[in-house]
Amino acid sequence: MGIEPHAVLRWDDLPDGPALVLLDQTRLPAEEVELVCTDVPALVRAIRVLAVRGAPLLGIAGAYGVALAAVRGDDVVEAAGLLERSRPTAVNLGYGVRRAVGAYRAAVGKGAGPERAAEAALAEARALHREDAEASVRMARYGLALLDELLPGPGHQLLTHCNTGALVSGGGGTALAVALGAHREGRLRRLWVDETRPLLQGARLTAYEAARNGMPYSLLTDNAAGSLFAAGEVDAVLIGADRIAADGSVANKVGSYPLAVLAKYHHVPFIVVAPTTTVDLDTVDGASITVEQRPGSEVTEFTSLRAGAAGGLLGAPAGAPAYNPAFDITPPDLVTAIVTEGGVVSPVTGVGLAELCARSSQVTIS
Amino acid sequence: MGIEPHAVLRWDDLPDGPALVLLDQTRLPAEEVELVCTDVPALVRAIRVLAVRGAPLLGIAGAYGVALAAVRGDDVVEAAGLLERSRPTAVNLGYGVRRAVGAYRAAVGKGAGPERAAEAALAEARALHREDAEASVRMARYGLALLDELLPGPGHQLLTHCNTGALVSGGGGTALAVALGAHREGRLRRLWVDETRPLLQGARLTAYEAARNGMPYSLLTDNAAGSLFAAGEVDAVLIGADRIAADGSVANKVGSYPLAVLAKYHHVPFIVVAPTTTVDLDTVDGASITVEQRPGSEVTEFTSLRAGAAGGLLGAPAGAPAYNPAFDITPPDLVTAIVTEGGVVSPVTGVGLAELCARSSQVTIS
Repeated sequence: MGIEPHAVLRWDDLPDGPALVLLDQTRLPAEEVELVCTDVPALVRAIRVLAVRGAPLLGIAGAYGVALAAVRGDDVVEAAGLLERSRPTAVNLGYGVRRAVGAYRAAVGKGAGPERAAEAALAEARALHREDAEASVRMARYGLALLDELLPGPGHQLLTHCNTGALVSGGGGTALAVALGAHREGRLRRLWVDETRPLLQGARLTAYEAARNGMPYSLLTDNAAGSLFAAGEVDAVLIGADRIAADGSVANKVGSYPLAVLAKYHHVPFIVVAPTTTVDLDTVDGASITVEQRPGSEVTEFTSLRAGAAGGLLGAPAGAPAYNPAFDITPPDLVTAIVTEGGVVSPVTGVGLAELCARSSQVTIS
Repeated sequence: MGIEPHAVLRWDDLPDGPALVLLDQTRLPAEEVELVCTDVPALVRAIRVLAVRGAPLLGIAGAYGVALAAVRGDDVVEAAGLLERSRPTAVNLGYGVRRAVGAYRAAVGKGAGPERAAEAALAEARALHREDAEASVRMARYGLALLDELLPGPGHQLLTHCNTGALVSGGGGTALAVALGAHREGRLRRLWVDETRPLLQGARLTAYEAARNGMPYSLLTDNAAGSLFAAGEVDAVLIGADRIAADGSVANKVGSYPLAVLAKYHHVPFIVVAPTTTVDLDTVDGASITVEQRPGSEVTEFTSLRAGAAGGLLGAPAGAPAYNPAFDITPPDLVTAIVTEGGVVSPVTGVGLAELCARSSQVTIS
């Protein structure tokens, strides 16, 4: 019943040439439609309208995008630039792009022709895809152990925001993979799913994944979470991340920071689950993270649930000005723990994070 | 450019008999359509689907509803019961109903016939309507003086939730009347308008009122408020109330409590503006307030913005379970001040609230 990684994103050698085939996430849950990207501009469009989204998956898509340009014989550097600039906040996108470009260049440096270099880029994208799937398994394991340690009761009530499951990853995902693990071990009493305005990734995607996996869940408007905390109905918050700065500040979907403040106020653990590829040691702190501002129409037009789709029913008065940041920043003192595939950082400090990243990159290299 | 109280709700002696004529708030801002209620069942339906809404206005509608039943020769006690039970949280509804029933009974007690008693009920409804308009003026005055005291700078950035303006009142409203007062005195730098999911009273109604009054405003998803607090872009929160318990706990539109926690965390004043008719000294504390639970379809169906309307585009998977409380409860220690037409209670204590209500009822009686 779960979602096959193959269905979310795959490289396909079609008769007319190679393509990156994506599950169009703007059409879920109403329709399961595949989007076939045969060149980088098509993939950039898919990234911009959020047909493909979620930090780890953006990294994978970026790497395959470079491979696609290389196999087609397009300008690899230009393609890499287009991909890196398509969304500013998720660090994984640039990471995936740079890994594939690095593999391409290394092959060229060793005297490979364009075809062999393209093969190297594709092999690197496949490696990243595989590593990310493995990272999901390990994050789920570390996350479950942490819940064991933090939460005494047998049945957990977990609250999540946005979508962090199989739809954002080469494997089971980040935060939602932990909740799914708890469910499979019979320890999930309830998953509270924030709808996640404006683009409703919680209502459309997390509810879809929860339903497919038979998880006990309830959907809520983002602002209804407060009363659940007050009533003691939230045992822990589990979210993903789009970029984690060197000081442990977490950029994630808008609405994460108010949950962190609520969690702090109610002494509820606030747990961030993300692969180490989401940690950006070059970004010193939260204030240095660029937060993507998206069109106000995502807020004012309520049938335009598909990002970039033509507007529909106008909820607000015509021309209403809107403030629409895609992300917010949670400072490290509000984060109980950061769970990665390399282990858990808690308390969240710059030193702890740097040490964990150093260990993880050693593991990757070996 | 403002909204005429007459347009929001009025008693009309039509050729076929009397009617309560309401501006249908479910159709705003797209259409300005009047809803003509010629009997109490029609009015109850209008209340249930939120065509008429907002605590003070519900009180006025309840009082006129009793008068409508009396003038028509319907069973006044039965009508009063129907009206009181139509929505459970706003205390003003029952208050308005009881005032009109009290006037009707007093007239009957003095030997009046049904026609004269009905006139007494109608006169009482008109008196409540007028008092509420006057209360708006006084709340705005007290609220502005409080902002003067609390906020040093010349231009205020105020954040509000739900709709608390001319559309909820016999006059200018509650919290939004204060913001409008600040605007008219040139002291409003920005009004941040929470869209207020699930029924979007902020996006549909507050944005409509703000635009009509030429106020500088920006709409945002409810969960985007956190980043504004973090950036120091909110000087004060102004909200209304549906019921204030004897201990100062405030029931208001879901999403108010998380704003109160955010305000506390960021040392920003959290100000509740409501007439003393919203204070219910018979409800001892927040836990004793009944919170209305509304249909999950308001959360899961995203074109069904009109409460009670037939569902449209399904945002969430079919049959997704949802948690949909209409209100939440903010405890008194998170409330900086309660502004009423009789003065300001700050700090918010049961004693302070009881004293203010005692003074106000003396003023009303004299």
